[in-house]
Amino acid sequence: MIILGVDPGLTRCGVGVIEAGANRRLSFIHVDVVRSDPHTSQDLRLLTIYQGLCEKMDRFIPDAVSIERVFAQENRNTVLGTAQAAGVAMLAAAQRGIPVALHTPTEAKLALTGNGKAQKIQIERMVTKVLGLNTLPTPADAADALSLAICHALRPQGALQGGEREQHLTAAQRQWAQAAQKAARRAGVRAGM
Amino acid sequence: MIILGVDPGLTRCGVGVIEAGANRRLSFIHVDVVRSDPHTSQDLRLLTIYQGLCEKMDRFIPDAVSIERVFAQENRNTVLGTAQAAGVAMLAAAQRGIPVALHTPTEAKLALTGNGKAQKIQIERMVTKVLGLNTLPTPADAADALSLAICHALRPQGALQGGEREQHLTAAQRQWAQAAQKAARRAGVRAGM
Repeated sequence: MIILGVDPGLTRCGVGVIEAGANRRLSFIHVDVVRSDPHTSQDLRLLTIYQGLCEKMDRFIPDAVSIERVFAQENRNTVLGTAQAAGVAMLAAAQRGIPVALHTPTEAKLALTGNGKAQKIQIERMVTKVLGLNTLPTPADAADALSLAICHALRPQGALQGGEREQHLTAAQRQWAQAAQKAARRAGVRAGM
Repeated sequence: MIILGVDPGLTRCGVGVIEAGANRRLSFIHVDVVRSDPHTSQDLRLLTIYQGLCEKMDRFIPDAVSIERVFAQENRNTVLGTAQAAGVAMLAAAQRGIPVALHTPTEAKLALTGNGKAQKIQIERMVTKVLGLNTLPTPADAADALSLAICHALRPQGALQGGEREQHLTAAQRQWAQAAQKAARRAGVRAGM
């Protein structure tokens, strides 16, 4: 299963592609940043980001696209551009019939480190380790896109369903399930999604 | 000159099309609402809105698209969906090489009534009058999309350039210019656009 992660942004939009094989064995395929010129108009910037993401999806033909969930109250200065970049990423996937998953940064951190408040460098190191790379992935800020793809590959499938299945989760998976439930509630209330 | 106005929304996205002829004579062409099902996933909803807007642009071949500018601090419950609907509208226009203008609700109200705080019913009545319609446009909430198209047609071209040209503006145009300048500052600071 090929998973394409997107760390949305209007100026820099991270893209990370991995393959999830048998026994959740993960391997690195690609990492890059799609950029748009801050000095051009917003419509042309969105077109540039969209075209860059379409090119990646057509090249790697992912089975799933994992995008960072954007919240209204965070990073006020750039939140709308970030939301719109996430929007054109969703659109590009929907046009190709690729299922889209939204994951919060907390979910990605929990999936990789078992700690929802892990530091950036810890995430980068775990991405490197999980994917069996020799060096940290570059560009460094695209590690977030890889972490979103990894998060989707490692997600505890039954975590959101609660009940009996939740009893078999590890402590980290329970933490993750709780973070995911909290995010779903926040998204429902605040983002109207 | 054909102008297509967009009142962005994920559940209901208003579309209004007008023609601006000689002496700023305006005539009504089309008004409609593109809807998406709130029970489907966000990526499919954005695809539905995008496809609906593309269909309108391909049918009416506008010379300009006028979209309501979204601010981060407003309507927290739905602001991200609204921003994303505005984003796919911008993308659809950019893909067709159609210039995009963003106008604030205050600018649209000022353009129509000379009052940036006009009530909804006043806007609807002025839209009806300016376009020479016999009845209020339906669906009623699509009047906002027409008001955005009208706002773009009537915009004071020199208003943002200040200096000598501003001295020749009417009181309403000066008010508008001030609102536009304020909006541009807010957009620069808060939305990072």
